[in-house]
Amino acid sequence: MLSCAVWHDGYANTVIASEIKACLFDVFGTVVDWRTSVTRELQDFARAKGIGGVDWLEFAVEWRALYQPSMEEVRSGRRPFTILDVLHRESLVKLLHRHAIAHLTAQDIDHMNRAWHRLDPWPDVREGLALIKRSRIIAPCSNGNIALMVNMARRAGLPWDCILGAETARAYKPLPEAYLASCRQLGLRPAEVMMVAAHNNDLKAAKAQGLATAFVARPNEHGPGQTSDLAPDASCVDVAAVDFVALASELG
Amino acid sequence: MLSCAVWHDGYANTVIASEIKACLFDVFGTVVDWRTSVTRELQDFARAKGIGGVDWLEFAVEWRALYQPSMEEVRSGRRPFTILDVLHRESLVKLLHRHAIAHLTAQDIDHMNRAWHRLDPWPDVREGLALIKRSRIIAPCSNGNIALMVNMARRAGLPWDCILGAETARAYKPLPEAYLASCRQLGLRPAEVMMVAAHNNDLKAAKAQGLATAFVARPNEHGPGQTSDLAPDASCVDVAAVDFVALASELG
Repeated sequence: MLSCAVWHDGYANTVIASEIKACLFDVFGTVVDWRTSVTRELQDFARAKGIGGVDWLEFAVEWRALYQPSMEEVRSGRRPFTILDVLHRESLVKLLHRHAIAHLTAQDIDHMNRAWHRLDPWPDVREGLALIKRSRIIAPCSNGNIALMVNMARRAGLPWDCILGAETARAYKPLPEAYLASCRQLGLRPAEVMMVAAHNNDLKAAKAQGLATAFVARPNEHGPGQTSDLAPDASCVDVAAVDFVALASELG
Repeated sequence: MLSCAVWHDGYANTVIASEIKACLFDVFGTVVDWRTSVTRELQDFARAKGIGGVDWLEFAVEWRALYQPSMEEVRSGRRPFTILDVLHRESLVKLLHRHAIAHLTAQDIDHMNRAWHRLDPWPDVREGLALIKRSRIIAPCSNGNIALMVNMARRAGLPWDCILGAETARAYKPLPEAYLASCRQLGLRPAEVMMVAAHNNDLKAAKAQGLATAFVARPNEHGPGQTSDLAPDASCVDVAAVDFVALASELG
C-alpha cells in the first residue's frame, strides 16, 4: 500500500502543509552528525587513556556498520525488544576485541558507549526545530532509546515536545509499528504527521503507513565520498528542503 | 519494602540533592489546577452551545471522581492497558447521561474531553520547572497519556525533557511499574530520581520503589474546604517545599 507522490518545486501536490500537526524526525544522520561526533568522543577518550594506534574514524564507521544487524535480531523476532544503548554496547565490546583494546573497566566502556548521547547537531537544526515548533509538535522518531535522546537533547539544545521512537513503540524502524505507534501516541492520524529524514528508505517506510514525508539532504553524513541519499526519491518524498530552516519556511 | 525518612527543615538526611539526576512530576493537582480549568472549559463550551442549568464545577468534580475507578479496571488486570483520554471520554459519556445532556456530536464530546489537555499550571510552575531543568532532567510521571501531556505542555509552556508516565510504562500509578519504568527509561537508578507530588499516596508508592520524594502542597486543588494532603507525610517524604521555585532552591 505504498502511496507515491511526485515531488517537484518543494511540494508534491498531495500534501497540504496546514494539515500537518506534527513533525517526526529521524535523528542519527538527519539531526546529528554521528560520524564526526563519535570519532571525536573516541579520540578524546583514547587520548585520556593513552590508547594509541587506532583509527577512530574507522572505528566509528565499523560501530555504525553493526547498527542495522543488531536491530535486525529484534525486528526479526529472534530477540525480544532491547533498547539501542544495550545493542550499541554489545557492538562496542565486539569491536574492542577486534581491535585488541583490553583492560577497560565497565565504566570506561559505558562512557565510550554514551558517545552516542553526545552527538552534535548539524548547524541549522536548533534554529529550524525552534521555528517548526511554533506551529507543530516536534518529536524524534528514532531508533535511539529515550535516555539517549533525552541526554542528547539536553546537551545539544534540541527542544523536543516529547521523545517518541523505537522504545515507545517497542519496534525498530522501518517496521510499520514504529511510525504508527508514534502517530497514535500523539493522538493524530498518519496523514497529520510528517516524517523528516535524510534517508529515503526511512521516508519510504513512513509513506507506506500514510505519513507525509520530508527529505533533508545530509551529503556529509558518510564523509566526503558519500554516494547515497544525495537527492530525494520522488516515489516517496512529498517535500524536500536543503535544511531544517528551509523546511520550516516550506511548512509555513 | 517501604523506606521511611524523617522529614524536617527541608531535607530528610537520607537524601543527598547532588545524587538526584532527574525529577518526575505528578501532573493533575501538582502541576496544573484541574478543578478550576476543567470547570472553565465546560462553562465556555456550555455557553457556546446554549446548555443551561448545570453546575459545571460539580460536573468537573464528578468527572474527577470517576478517574480512580476507571483506572482501577486497568490496574486490576480486568481490562488491557487503555490510555486516559479513552477512560476520560467513557466517564464523560456516563456523566452526560446522568445530567440528561443530549444531542451532542462526537466532535462536541471530543472537544469537552480534551478539556484535560487545556489545564492551567499553578503560578509557580513555569519558573520552577525552568530552574530545576538547568541541572536535572524534568519529566511528568502522570497517569495522563502522551498526547494529553504534549498538548498541555505546549499550551501551558511546560518545558519537559520528555513525557513519561502511564502510557510509556503501560501501568497506572501507584503500581510499582509506573515509577520503575520511568527510571529505567531515563537510564537511572530509582535513588537518582525524585518524584514530586502534592499527594502523599503517590510519594509513598514512589518511595517504596526506592525513589527520592518531594512534597509540594497544593491546598486549593480540591477547593476552599480541602482537608487532605495539606502537609507532608513524614513516613515517605524526603523534601518538602511550598512551591516549585522553592523546590528548585532546595535542590540547588
